[in-house]
Amino acid sequence: MTERTSVLLTDLYELTMLQAYFDQGMNDTAVFEFFVRKLPPGRNFLMAAGLEQVLDFLEDLRFTTSELDWLAGCGRFHRSFVDSLRDLRFTGDVQAMPEGTIFFADEPILRVVAPLPQAQLVETRLINLLQFQTLVASKAARVRLAAPDKSLVDFGLRRAHGAEAGLLSARASYLAGFDGTSTVLAGMRWGIPLYGTMAHSFVQAHDDEVAAFEHFARSYPTTSTLLIDTYDTEAAAHSLLPLAKKLAAEGITIQAVRLDSGDLGAHARQVRRILDEGGLPGIGIFASGNLDEYQLAELIAAGAPINGFGVGTRMNTSADRPYLDCAYKLQEYADLPRRKQSEGKATWPGRKQVYRSYGADGLMAGDRLTTVDDAAPGEALLVPVMRQGRRLANVPVLNTLREHARAEMARLPASLRALTPAAAPYCVTVAPPLKQLAAEVDRRIQK
Amino acid sequence: MTERTSVLLTDLYELTMLQAYFDQGMNDTAVFEFFVRKLPPGRNFLMAAGLEQVLDFLEDLRFTTSELDWLAGCGRFHRSFVDSLRDLRFTGDVQAMPEGTIFFADEPILRVVAPLPQAQLVETRLINLLQFQTLVASKAARVRLAAPDKSLVDFGLRRAHGAEAGLLSARASYLAGFDGTSTVLAGMRWGIPLYGTMAHSFVQAHDDEVAAFEHFARSYPTTSTLLIDTYDTEAAAHSLLPLAKKLAAEGITIQAVRLDSGDLGAHARQVRRILDEGGLPGIGIFASGNLDEYQLAELIAAGAPINGFGVGTRMNTSADRPYLDCAYKLQEYADLPRRKQSEGKATWPGRKQVYRSYGADGLMAGDRLTTVDDAAPGEALLVPVMRQGRRLANVPVLNTLREHARAEMARLPASLRALTPAAAPYCVTVAPPLKQLAAEVDRRIQK
Repeated sequence: MTERTSVLLTDLYELTMLQAYFDQGMNDTAVFEFFVRKLPPGRNFLMAAGLEQVLDFLEDLRFTTSELDWLAGCGRFHRSFVDSLRDLRFTGDVQAMPEGTIFFADEPILRVVAPLPQAQLVETRLINLLQFQTLVASKAARVRLAAPDKSLVDFGLRRAHGAEAGLLSARASYLAGFDGTSTVLAGMRWGIPLYGTMAHSFVQAHDDEVAAFEHFARSYPTTSTLLIDTYDTEAAAHSLLPLAKKLAAEGITIQAVRLDSGDLGAHARQVRRILDEGGLPGIGIFASGNLDEYQLAELIAAGAPINGFGVGTRMNTSADRPYLDCAYKLQEYADLPRRKQSEGKATWPGRKQVYRSYGADGLMAGDRLTTVDDAAPGEALLVPVMRQGRRLANVPVLNTLREHARAEMARLPASLRALTPAAAPYCVTVAPPLKQLAAEVDRRIQK
Repeated sequence: MTERTSVLLTDLYELTMLQAYFDQGMNDTAVFEFFVRKLPPGRNFLMAAGLEQVLDFLEDLRFTTSELDWLAGCGRFHRSFVDSLRDLRFTGDVQAMPEGTIFFADEPILRVVAPLPQAQLVETRLINLLQFQTLVASKAARVRLAAPDKSLVDFGLRRAHGAEAGLLSARASYLAGFDGTSTVLAGMRWGIPLYGTMAHSFVQAHDDEVAAFEHFARSYPTTSTLLIDTYDTEAAAHSLLPLAKKLAAEGITIQAVRLDSGDLGAHARQVRRILDEGGLPGIGIFASGNLDEYQLAELIAAGAPINGFGVGTRMNTSADRPYLDCAYKLQEYADLPRRKQSEGKATWPGRKQVYRSYGADGLMAGDRLTTVDDAAPGEALLVPVMRQGRRLANVPVLNTLREHARAEMARLPASLRALTPAAAPYCVTVAPPLKQLAAEVDRRIQK
């Protein structure tokens, strides 16, 4: 669904390794898994996201003639290797947690099983796609937890890190429970509901603030949201009273006002009082301006009369935790389980599955990380999503995934729903068969 | 140079405002400026970047038929307005600071002068492009200040926020003084030097670590960098000694080793000793792994024998300060200067220029922010870059901009070169004519 991204949007080492694999004829089946090593400090859970774009990427994987020509001419690669790339396609299998699934450290959310060069080549872009949407969905889920009953709109395109980040953060935040976005392309592409108000420039371009409000309301007779903080918020609210009455006589209603600066709670209370006393209780109050889950929680705890929030920059840059300590690691090659043992970065070897248990209350009660052939009790979280390079028909559309995310959030234990760090982290047990496998691999490596 | 991005990658309000402007026939000349309201805490300066992509965007601005059809069918816009978009092009003028220029709070780095609908429509994407590259260039400049004599390579594509962020952070970090990037597409597109090593998977896919090293060295007889921390760093360094001698007999040399985990300084010292005592002083040491300017400064202060660094995630997400408090604001419409007065977000009105003075030592000595018609002494930092929608021939290529950035860095006063906050911020004076203009605008608004 996203524009095709050049296969050369990758790290050079993927290609230099591919040439060395080619030189050595290393083409056996490799198993890579993507996982997060540690949750970011203060985060109690993560929400998987980005799979749809990964599957698009894998289905579209190919080198164009101009890319091959550039590779052949760049001085690093020999002709027979470059020629071998011409027909390279992704022909592997993928298992993954559905988008919207809650997950924890060390749990793979995606597994690729493919010939080594294919599975290696996709590493960089696959991490790039999975980390970003997972980061934003996880942040947006926290914003939703802070404001369960409010209208929440993604306003973050302008300060997202580039075009794709802006577009995909609209998707990831909607997945995680936002009501919509201001990003038009996300509406066109995925049918995400669009919301928009007006900018200060609209007010400034008029010589008179009330004229700006009237013009906008006339263009949008039932859906206008007027930005009232350009000069003096309360004065603007007062000026709406006669305007709203005049417009009402013509059947034009003002839907809401937006506050974007100062003490949002204090302004909201004053504006609410002005509007209510002026006989306009139907006009809603929408707030924006450097908001995140912490500020929403504070405003709501203080009873600020705000109906909805535009949440941007801090959500879609995940400003307090702008990256995940994630990796895509080789776990098996040529039928042998593998692991790296680097300090602080050792991995669990082999093909793994996560089994989740639920309590009598329906809430998540613990996960078991184990080998795929350990038939543990609980719900298996990784499911097949692609076979031989073709996506399976069971991969759901965005609105279905959003329902799944909502169901997942409803099953979060209370301790994990808090914005503060849980006293005890969620219990993920590494099962004995996996520990045994790791010990076997260590013994083999040390030989 | 980047792929065309849909004009619908914008906030809905740009389009709703455009329809209201259309309904009111508001089509006079508007002047918008992009600036940063406040430097991020702890940052002593910023480096302007992203102009090339802005000019590409403005030159390519148009609605496709399918975009127009979607707009006409989405239920928010009337036919005559949508029809008016068919021939919309950007026909305005742009002045800007060249990329690589050092700038400070409140200083416009770009001014758009165009009919109101055009100047308004471009707001979202223009901020999106300028903030991100400026953010990364400014961070990368700090990394370069921390390690003036080391090889610095952008390794951050995988954890950048999406495809464009990955690609553009290669460009922005190169502009700011990095030596190159691992992002292949950035090499193809801008000729940025490419660097790459190998991943742990390459070592893991072999049953024997030394075999992995040998295979890689044979594929790259003079340029191999071997990753030696997959199992045991010092053991791997020892294993290189006989391998290097064997390969040397065939004319194959190992260029460097890479460390990616643990205490990089301690490992570097041990590995350096092992290689030197083993007669391999020519093999360099390259380090990576969650590095930023602070860690580089520490490693270098401690004398760690590291020749180069791969700097990724924390640089290209600008992890400690992942966004800029920036804006693109209407400063004039229909020949009248404008300003917003929102709490904490008031702007300086009118068309502005920044004049920079230099001391006898050649270092930057202070800026004067003033109106364009105030012929102040010093170097005028904003220059024309686009006229009537066409970029001017004077816009330099990346390598020239990089030289400019280097010259700018050389003119930074010592207090601003520190990674810690300067005791006194750089002096930016708001000149009397600008203060006077602001007072006049305030008097007009209050009438």
